[in-house]
Amino acid sequence: MAAAKLLRARWVVPVEPAGAVLEDQAVAVRDGLIEAVLPAEQAAAAYPGYETLELPGHALIPGLVNAHTHAAMSLMRGLSDDLPLMLWLQEHIWPAEARHVSPEFVRDGTLLACAEMLRGGVTCFNDMYFFPEASLEAALGARMRSAQGIIAIEFPSAYASDAEDYLRRGLAIRDRWRDEPLVSFCFAPHAPYTVSDATFRRIAALAAELDLQVHVHLHETAEELERSLAEHGARPLERLRRLGLLGPSLIAVHAVHLDEAEIELLARHGCSVVHCPSSNLKLASGFAPVDALVKKGVNLALGTDGAASNNRLDMFQEMRTAALLAKAVAGDAQALPAHAALRAATLGGARALGIERIAGSIVPGKSADLAAIDMRAPELAPCYDVVSHLVYAAGRENVSHVWVAGELLLQERELLVPALRGLDTRGQLWQNALRNLADS
Amino acid sequence: MAAAKLLRARWVVPVEPAGAVLEDQAVAVRDGLIEAVLPAEQAAAAYPGYETLELPGHALIPGLVNAHTHAAMSLMRGLSDDLPLMLWLQEHIWPAEARHVSPEFVRDGTLLACAEMLRGGVTCFNDMYFFPEASLEAALGARMRSAQGIIAIEFPSAYASDAEDYLRRGLAIRDRWRDEPLVSFCFAPHAPYTVSDATFRRIAALAAELDLQVHVHLHETAEELERSLAEHGARPLERLRRLGLLGPSLIAVHAVHLDEAEIELLARHGCSVVHCPSSNLKLASGFAPVDALVKKGVNLALGTDGAASNNRLDMFQEMRTAALLAKAVAGDAQALPAHAALRAATLGGARALGIERIAGSIVPGKSADLAAIDMRAPELAPCYDVVSHLVYAAGRENVSHVWVAGELLLQERELLVPALRGLDTRGQLWQNALRNLADS
Repeated sequence: MAAAKLLRARWVVPVEPAGAVLEDQAVAVRDGLIEAVLPAEQAAAAYPGYETLELPGHALIPGLVNAHTHAAMSLMRGLSDDLPLMLWLQEHIWPAEARHVSPEFVRDGTLLACAEMLRGGVTCFNDMYFFPEASLEAALGARMRSAQGIIAIEFPSAYASDAEDYLRRGLAIRDRWRDEPLVSFCFAPHAPYTVSDATFRRIAALAAELDLQVHVHLHETAEELERSLAEHGARPLERLRRLGLLGPSLIAVHAVHLDEAEIELLARHGCSVVHCPSSNLKLASGFAPVDALVKKGVNLALGTDGAASNNRLDMFQEMRTAALLAKAVAGDAQALPAHAALRAATLGGARALGIERIAGSIVPGKSADLAAIDMRAPELAPCYDVVSHLVYAAGRENVSHVWVAGELLLQERELLVPALRGLDTRGQLWQNALRNLADS
Repeated sequence: MAAAKLLRARWVVPVEPAGAVLEDQAVAVRDGLIEAVLPAEQAAAAYPGYETLELPGHALIPGLVNAHTHAAMSLMRGLSDDLPLMLWLQEHIWPAEARHVSPEFVRDGTLLACAEMLRGGVTCFNDMYFFPEASLEAALGARMRSAQGIIAIEFPSAYASDAEDYLRRGLAIRDRWRDEPLVSFCFAPHAPYTVSDATFRRIAALAAELDLQVHVHLHETAEELERSLAEHGARPLERLRRLGLLGPSLIAVHAVHLDEAEIELLARHGCSVVHCPSSNLKLASGFAPVDALVKKGVNLALGTDGAASNNRLDMFQEMRTAALLAKAVAGDAQALPAHAALRAATLGGARALGIERIAGSIVPGKSADLAAIDMRAPELAPCYDVVSHLVYAAGRENVSHVWVAGELLLQERELLVPALRGLDTRGQLWQNALRNLADS
């Protein structure tokens, strides 16, 4: 366990209470937890013997929560761009996965993703991919917090043979790691068009029994809706409602194509939406009604999606794009203001994952999952409003320090984690293997 | 004049011919010009005595052209966000300008903007603001290429008393600086709602006589169109057509609200459009029909707009947002692919400004306005397609070196330009002055 410490920052942006910006404050950290937030000038006297880190031009924020990704896909970053979702999946991504996905692929790809995410202020990610135990081990190796998906999909892969097999393997992993404090689990049925009614029903029952969240791609494209109407006589959200999946445990990812009644339904059931603006734009999926969702009270989180469809695991980018895009979609420049975007990227994500009691804001008793943003670059001058700068002007390159559960993982932009060294060589090997496939 | 040199790069992306990516090539630079592009292994023998710079993991690209900005407004970055255009202008920006704008404000703000732009790979910007000579002197101090606006607007300011006075002052500045190779000029009538028919007519005549481009905000908001219909009986583009302004010299900035006939009209007259995606989103102006413009053959350029409405002078961000947004707007994931976005940010901008013979691509005989992007960060691994990475994955923080007319201005992210030192203090003084206004 790291020593008790005081982080003295120019600004502390705790996210709770909403809109608060504390100037010249210190955050006391002990045993991995946030112990107190207090004026910097009182801190040394109140906490003698604590090691002090000065962050004189920095904003200290809760670590960002990437509420939807497929971390291992960082190995496919830019492998095939500028293509529509189904063509991209069927002719590029799925063949590459069929050939290459293995525990080694997932471990190496997830480690690379963790390096990128930590350097970008992300302390927690919600993963949905094959071989989740390899992703889990990579996340733990990187010392990051993660939610791992108990994935279910109807088609066989190198990982599992059928939906029942996916669930059995996922539940076994969950049993093995349930006491690990940095890991939580979600059921992760892939999407309405790849998961049967029977599997959804089984997941609804298991999620209720085990008190787990359910992480699913939902209402991503117009095609998905048409197909659901044709095959199930209902739009996907209505189908999930009938199957008993709507509730505070539901994490609806994308949620691009929603009518007013569906927005109401999500709000009434306390569901969370993970908005992935870059991915929705890149795959031409459409424009999520973010302002309407927030106004109706739906919990909003943000996600990068995988690096094959983004191509950055960059929550600063997602905050900025979400805040800008919401305004044009709503026709209202006041939609999703900066503080709401920051909240979605932190507390909104933690709440979606069911871990808001331990992460997502700078509140005594929560885990010390923190990021320091150095605001002294010429690109960030002058500074009238630090929250505006965090969302509209800063980038992941301004993240100087990151802590997870009080452990310093990034210091002056240098990763301190041994597991994240030497990734270049392994990344290059995978690149050669995948490029050969693409060229063949 | 700097020594002749060879820049040996892992990749050279010349932009012309379209889509070309040259591996392990060298660019020979002499007397500020690009002398040759040739395989790296032949370069030393072909150009003995040239100083060699190794860029072993870098992409060398043409310097980015920011085709629309108000550079001095960097001093108002984040001063008031999350507001609609007219409220933002009338209650925040215009009062701040009325109180503060002076040659000193413009010089300091433009120097800060130049520091930001150079660090982001921008070698040329097209400015529209008060006191253009102060902006010009700042750009020359920063050693950057610029197009300076001969601004015209009907209301008085500290700079000029009426439209005729604006034009007279602008033309005098142009006469004074017409032999300076790093500067060109555009007429810059502010917008259809702030410039009279008489002034537009006068500018049309002068532009034809002096062979200058005309840089104007156009079809930015729905409100602008309504107002034009009410006051002039025509939409702004039709009004400008009647006033004789349509032609290859017209730089239509924003061009968000266009019907099919208007897109045709822009194409037929050889006009350029400067797309400012971040600004259009932030002010909720709407979605420009970028894919349709490009398909009809309109020359597309990109701009950041001012830092008060963006809040980054970051052409990497604009490339990425333009490429992503175009797909969702067109409902086609193949719209504005990566190479087209890069072209808009370089050659498209140079063409809009009428300087495509000297800038915008890596072609022998053009000015050596170049940027090197270090592609070795974990965020950029693996790399299957360097152009995809430039647009979708890289950021301005990956820009390592920048040259304008062969002069090295940024080296390993350090600015080498004396005029760009000590900006912190001056920025802080302006921040204090403007904040006092905002609080009063």
